[in-house]
Amino acid sequence: MAAPIEALAFDVFGTVVDWRTSIAREAACFFADLERPDIDPAGFADQWRGLYQPAMEECRAGRRSFVRLDALNRETLDTLLDRHGVTGAEEQRLDHFAHAWRRLDPWPDAVEGLTRLKARYPIVTLSNGNIALMLEMARRGGLPWDAILGAEVTGAYKPEPRAYLGTAEALGIAPANLCLVAAHHSDLAAARACGLATAYVDRPLEYGGRPAPDRHFRQEWDYLADSITDLATRLGC
Amino acid sequence: MAAPIEALAFDVFGTVVDWRTSIAREAACFFADLERPDIDPAGFADQWRGLYQPAMEECRAGRRSFVRLDALNRETLDTLLDRHGVTGAEEQRLDHFAHAWRRLDPWPDAVEGLTRLKARYPIVTLSNGNIALMLEMARRGGLPWDAILGAEVTGAYKPEPRAYLGTAEALGIAPANLCLVAAHHSDLAAARACGLATAYVDRPLEYGGRPAPDRHFRQEWDYLADSITDLATRLGC
Repeated sequence: MAAPIEALAFDVFGTVVDWRTSIAREAACFFADLERPDIDPAGFADQWRGLYQPAMEECRAGRRSFVRLDALNRETLDTLLDRHGVTGAEEQRLDHFAHAWRRLDPWPDAVEGLTRLKARYPIVTLSNGNIALMLEMARRGGLPWDAILGAEVTGAYKPEPRAYLGTAEALGIAPANLCLVAAHHSDLAAARACGLATAYVDRPLEYGGRPAPDRHFRQEWDYLADSITDLATRLGC
Repeated sequence: MAAPIEALAFDVFGTVVDWRTSIAREAACFFADLERPDIDPAGFADQWRGLYQPAMEECRAGRRSFVRLDALNRETLDTLLDRHGVTGAEEQRLDHFAHAWRRLDPWPDAVEGLTRLKARYPIVTLSNGNIALMLEMARRGGLPWDAILGAEVTGAYKPEPRAYLGTAEALGIAPANLCLVAAHHSDLAAARACGLATAYVDRPLEYGGRPAPDRHFRQEWDYLADSITDLATRLGC
């Protein structure tokens, strides 16, 4: 028999918020201002997201000490703009664009689903996003987190075990009593390897309708849901 | 001219919640169960609180690595029960009593005041309490924190500078743009020394009406308020 769930920890980018549409929207404005309408905003969002794992890998592999995601997002932005030959953007404008990751819109079901789940369970972030990023996103989108945990609090990026185990420890509960909610099979697989319970939320539009890059990690998860409101219903909230 | 406030960080024990009344209430039950009505519950609360600074000092002085407050509370409880010759309490009951610090009632103005302030400023904890403690207290009392920061996130107990500076850093803002809200002059003095703005909230009943032990740290703070709702009014919220 499975251990009872005492808290829910959420992956955020892709699971709770729609990064692709939001980044594409800001990219469209950014490139319009620079008179570079030839750069496809949604494609740029995909490329930017594509640099996310390699940037974190430098930290995970120990070649670099822990760096907040806000800073990595700025570095990968610079790399990408360089590849596209984009020049002439002011420093302040670049910082603002790098912070577009703080201004991602929640999926339509997220606020209602989280609010229902929160009535019964503590809900926390278990994201690779840093605290300031998650806080601004939550205030802007109305995400009612009980606490912002994850990478910055544990000093480790997922899928490092310390990110999952340190989050359970901060909550004062056993890993088996913590359930990760994520739209990503790779994230859930790493959480399960640490002893966490797992809830998959399907987000078929995360990559604009294309297949998820981590689909080969698919397993039978403890819970399967179409949305966060659906998960709330399945958990009796 | 003072830097604009971009976020408010709150001391919690004494400033937002009334530890003395809440601990005394649980102590009364605990000692009644053990048939020790001779132990004064409010006096016991004062004695327990009295062991708080010395316990943290072991960590601050580097004689011990950082330990979560939940664990320190259990250690100081054991010490105090030993002094009173209290024996025979079950392990589970002791753990529950040590967690009484998670179940402190907010002062009557706290929830309304925080809610008003939150509409304009990010509000975070900057407490020596650990994350699990602060989270349970917030859910029980309805404290609408945007994030739980402070000792556990920075790895340092107040009044160490790292507790204040690390909190500003996690928020991605300069120390001068962060305002500490506290009922304790010593806490505010340490925050000011780190460059933070300061708001004093008067809590004359914190020590049951007796003078505060840190009154010699009194200075002219940036803001003075009688309650958190009063502070909200003074900040135009």
